[in-house]
Amino acid sequence: MVDYRSDNTGRAAPEILEALVQANTGTALGYGADEWTARLQDRFSELFETSVRVFPVATGTAANALSLATVSPSWGLVYCSELAHINTSEANAAGFFGGGLKLVPVAGSYGRIDPAAFRDMLAAVQPGQLHRGQPAAVNLTQATDLGAVYRVDDIAGVAEIARARGLKVHMDGARFANALSRLNCSPADMSWRAGVDILSFGATKNGGALCDAIVVFDPELADGLAVQLRRAGQVWSKMRFASAQLMAYVENGLWLRLARASNAAAARIAAGLEGLPGLRLVAPVEANEIFLEIPSAVMDALERDGFQFYRRSTTLARFVCRFDLTDAEADALVASLRRHCTLPAKGAE
Amino acid sequence: MVDYRSDNTGRAAPEILEALVQANTGTALGYGADEWTARLQDRFSELFETSVRVFPVATGTAANALSLATVSPSWGLVYCSELAHINTSEANAAGFFGGGLKLVPVAGSYGRIDPAAFRDMLAAVQPGQLHRGQPAAVNLTQATDLGAVYRVDDIAGVAEIARARGLKVHMDGARFANALSRLNCSPADMSWRAGVDILSFGATKNGGALCDAIVVFDPELADGLAVQLRRAGQVWSKMRFASAQLMAYVENGLWLRLARASNAAAARIAAGLEGLPGLRLVAPVEANEIFLEIPSAVMDALERDGFQFYRRSTTLARFVCRFDLTDAEADALVASLRRHCTLPAKGAE
Amino acid sequence: MVDYRSDNTGRAAPEILEALVQANTGTALGYGADEWTARLQDRFSELFETSVRVFPVATGTAANALSLATVSPSWGLVYCSELAHINTSEANAAGFFGGGLKLVPVAGSYGRIDPAAFRDMLAAVQPGQLHRGQPAAVNLTQATDLGAVYRVDDIAGVAEIARARGLKVHMDGARFANALSRLNCSPADMSWRAGVDILSFGATKNGGALCDAIVVFDPELADGLAVQLRRAGQVWSKMRFASAQLMAYVENGLWLRLARASNAAAARIAAGLEGLPGLRLVAPVEANEIFLEIPSAVMDALERDGFQFYRRSTTLARFVCRFDLTDAEADALVASLRRHCTLPAKGAE
Amino acid sequence: MVDYRSDNTGRAAPEILEALVQANTGTALGYGADEWTARLQDRFSELFETSVRVFPVATGTAANALSLATVSPSWGLVYCSELAHINTSEANAAGFFGGGLKLVPVAGSYGRIDPAAFRDMLAAVQPGQLHRGQPAAVNLTQATDLGAVYRVDDIAGVAEIARARGLKVHMDGARFANALSRLNCSPADMSWRAGVDILSFGATKNGGALCDAIVVFDPELADGLAVQLRRAGQVWSKMRFASAQLMAYVENGLWLRLARASNAAAARIAAGLEGLPGLRLVAPVEANEIFLEIPSAVMDALERDGFQFYRRSTTLARFVCRFDLTDAEADALVASLRRHCTLPAKGAE
Repeated sequence: MVDYRSDNTGRAAPEILEALVQANTGTALGYGADEWTARLQDRFSELFETSVRVFPVATGTAANALSLATVSPSWGLVYCSELAHINTSEANAAGFFGGGLKLVPVAGSYGRIDPAAFRDMLAAVQPGQLHRGQPAAVNLTQATDLGAVYRVDDIAGVAEIARARGLKVHMDGARFANALSRLNCSPADMSWRAGVDILSFGATKNGGALCDAIVVFDPELADGLAVQLRRAGQVWSKMRFASAQLMAYVENGLWLRLARASNAAAARIAAGLEGLPGLRLVAPVEANEIFLEIPSAVMDALERDGFQFYRRSTTLARFVCRFDLTDAEADALVASLRRHCTLPAKGAE
Repeated sequence: MVDYRSDNTGRAAPEILEALVQANTGTALGYGADEWTARLQDRFSELFETSVRVFPVATGTAANALSLATVSPSWGLVYCSELAHINTSEANAAGFFGGGLKLVPVAGSYGRIDPAAFRDMLAAVQPGQLHRGQPAAVNLTQATDLGAVYRVDDIAGVAEIARARGLKVHMDGARFANALSRLNCSPADMSWRAGVDILSFGATKNGGALCDAIVVFDPELADGLAVQLRRAGQVWSKMRFASAQLMAYVENGLWLRLARASNAAAARIAAGLEGLPGLRLVAPVEANEIFLEIPSAVMDALERDGFQFYRRSTTLARFVCRFDLTDAEADALVASLRRHCTLPAKGAE
Repeated sequence: MVDYRSDNTGRAAPEILEALVQANTGTALGYGADEWTARLQDRFSELFETSVRVFPVATGTAANALSLATVSPSWGLVYCSELAHINTSEANAAGFFGGGLKLVPVAGSYGRIDPAAFRDMLAAVQPGQLHRGQPAAVNLTQATDLGAVYRVDDIAGVAEIARARGLKVHMDGARFANALSRLNCSPADMSWRAGVDILSFGATKNGGALCDAIVVFDPELADGLAVQLRRAGQVWSKMRFASAQLMAYVENGLWLRLARASNAAAARIAAGLEGLPGLRLVAPVEANEIFLEIPSAVMDALERDGFQFYRRSTTLARFVCRFDLTDAEADALVASLRRHCTLPAKGAE
Repeated sequence: MVDYRSDNTGRAAPEILEALVQANTGTALGYGADEWTARLQDRFSELFETSVRVFPVATGTAANALSLATVSPSWGLVYCSELAHINTSEANAAGFFGGGLKLVPVAGSYGRIDPAAFRDMLAAVQPGQLHRGQPAAVNLTQATDLGAVYRVDDIAGVAEIARARGLKVHMDGARFANALSRLNCSPADMSWRAGVDILSFGATKNGGALCDAIVVFDPELADGLAVQLRRAGQVWSKMRFASAQLMAYVENGLWLRLARASNAAAARIAAGLEGLPGLRLVAPVEANEIFLEIPSAVMDALERDGFQFYRRSTTLARFVCRFDLTDAEADALVASLRRHCTLPAKGAE
């Protein structure tokens, strides 16, 4: 069996768990007033080349929803891609933590927000009109929910439209490292320098274990968020065990090594499928996910061959590469696809 | 330095971290659909001698607030001790997750709810009256926030009053193991058999690392809670790393060994203070906490001697014993207290 | 100037204000414990041929949002037409009062929910799946937001699909009287007999002044709603002045007379436009609203002729008929449209 | 029967209903975009001698809860008197609209906040501490819930403490006119000049019918509140009928005439009770309410004599004077009390 279901079905990088174990020494003040968490602030400020506040949280859903609740009043509108994870997969956590804030889907290609569509939607809302709520923020999912990546200029373009109208910019970086690895730019370039105010910094999908983080670039947002997190049950009393994970995650470039590995696996598979008839890549493979349009009979055949993956519809399959996927496993998927797509799939007539 | 500030300043039991590391093998479905979490259901059902649903969560605050949101409508009143942690120390998480539910403090001794006071308060609320909200649930903190323990009959007594009026019963078991160890009864006796519907099952304060749990005895509550938890950002995608911790916590009686150790340290200190003039135990020492009324000059002296603890007021000090506190450390505190309380404290004249 | 902007720009029926003035006698208990409100319960139970609870509220938005908060848990999904007022025009009141519940738009014609589309959407949600919330209720806007009317069978069809999955059924009856007048059936047939559990009973748009109501058919929903309404600031202390309005509204068939008048005006206009080139009715005119696709130059010309109406887009104009619109005013609109649509509109070349 | 149960059991001043009827002419844009509401802005700005925004709302509960939600983040603490209406009688509307904000009772005499107690409570909260939420606002009930009145200096004193810590100041003016009439100062002096940022402006208890208002002095708060009100179902589509009531309420000093009448009735009763043994005024009678400690047998006797009032406990009775209470009715209550308090009450031995 080879598991392509999700990057969260995978293991944690051993370095991260090792750091957690190493943190189990002596006593330390609770709720983030420990030395590990203090060092984390410094380390991330260095990493992002500006003074940031970083808050470890249990999950990406918490990171997203609490970030949005921080940048939007409860009657706010938060614009996002039609396919955005916050809109399709987080049980409306944003609406809940945001006290009734509303997500507004914007069209675009490959899970991105189309700048022109976004600008038009904003233009259609009269400042002060009451019946629809008021625009408050925009969310960018990086990498997108179809495995594509916003270029730095794309981010800056959307952010500029947002800021011209007084909106804040949130990035859902559940796969921040994958996107960063793809763009080969600095964390600063892909975030605050491009206009991002607050970032859900994902680790779990990229070899982490039990925590992600919120990185706050706009200092005015941090103090309120701190109380909100405490109240949201997202502040561990033994925070050092979370902070230690995040420190290990970025130490010595581990996070980028992990992301490069899963990106490379996805690219290897995509390259192997080039020119193959009977399938269609739904989006460019720019991170560690592959969305393929294939007949459902081909999906059946892949499963018989021992591959696990998600069927998003009867003709859409998603394959996600973990950091520890081997070349042999990648090649096996390619081989299986080549076999079933070139031959008429059983039962597909 | 000896740290009596809190049980959450302490280490995790090595067995628990070891189990977390051991879980780092193979792939596993996310969000609790893994084998570790499945086994956890069985193990806790066995432990509680009834079929339960157990949900790992990041923090005790999440466990409490989401439990209360499950047993109360948003306009509900939740009764609790005046000193209850949910009321004094969780940034009104219950009000937030509960959509505006209101906590109503009830008098009692040593952080307990006085049954008569509770009965009278309920009697004063007309069913159907609109101006104050409607009674929905009662919360019992076990052990209490002054380190006392409800006897099984005490729990049953409060629960009976509650149930007669249609209220649900929630136990905040942040120190469930400490209380259990004290009472030397079964987990079932101290929970559902005494009328508890839903339990915040604490692990962190008793040698855990990054998770606590909600244990649901009333099966009608579980499915809704499951969705609510997902939305609350409390469902880890790599849940196995949480479930493995909780499995290790209860395996081979580890949790009770840890609780017995911290309880014993507290009892040892309390015994050492007997008959000492100039101090007063504010509540019976029945778990791992000691609340002492002592002059602030004595507190200064203790700090000079290297003891860390919290000042709850100018004359009230709290000492919490961790599972790994040594006899020597306990005796040192006693010796220091004996020295400073029998001699006139410096600066106290 | 003739005002076609909305039915809420119009006057109240004098009978309703007169009743309000008549209620200004003697003293009466507050918050609905008065005789007027008691009589209202009886009167509406008679009107709906079943025992109902009726709660006067200030606005249709309050009626809708609080009804939905009553039939859905906070993590629930509420299905509605893509064009539903609750989704497009109430500033996400449903999400707010519902503690984060989410509206899910369903396709259909003329502002209706298409039963097949609704069935398919429900089928795509796994019971127990966590990532998207769980289906809780369906909302029907009667008359629809394009001025069409669900037939009794249409309502029953959608309700049946909903109930088969355990969903509750809410009707937004902001124009309940208009629809009822069109269908010429009983209030019971168009509501609970067709499967409706809770109804926003509109009066304001049809000659009311300052209140609408929630009518509850499912008795289990009423007691909780009563507390929720008090807390929502929707229970007037001098409730008699609201209840008296609603009594007058339904007395002697006033509400149906008013609705017939505004429906007739709309029908008269629609008939006058038949066969006219250069315009298109976007939906059948079944209540008191007319949605016309016309060039924006025609809209300009109409405004120059003294007609007020809303431009929904550059080519979509909405005309709403009030109960006191005269035949002459209706004919004037027709005449103006005939003039500008048959001649090439100025500036339209 | 003479009704002393509440001022909201009474009639509306005929002038107010007459104004509502007079507003029933022509068409007017909905949701506050009408001429009546525009004039209301000017009139209240004149009345308060500064530019204000005034929002009609259905109830005092809505005015209070939405005001507090405007001046406090959802994790905020709002200080209020132990007896404050927002804390005891509004079904936790503040917690609901405020997304989980918490009310913190402060001690004081006669329903007032004691400035020293308030200062001490604020001093005990560390800025940035997470466990209890953060101070956000203070609420003053004027007149208080025991019928006393804050002097202008009292208000300024509390407001100064609040502002020194960055808190906003809300006044619950359900009986604003009664207090104003007592102090004989200007509306400006009793509100923004003394430090009030936002005011619940009561009309209903003082001869109003179906609306109260929020008056916003801090212009930064108004735009957000406007959207929040729309979403809260507090913006009538036929707003003119509300605005017309509020215009009539303040026109020609009507509101002060009404308040002087009810205040005078209460003062007449209080004067009549002077020196009477067997009863005790619980608070000075400074507005239109009288709180009397009398034996429950006396209460029985009063009821037999035809007086209606509320029993707040077995020995505490509340009598509220309406604007249209006659001298004869006031004297009758005094006579009855004199009779039953001087003679041993039946059944009281």
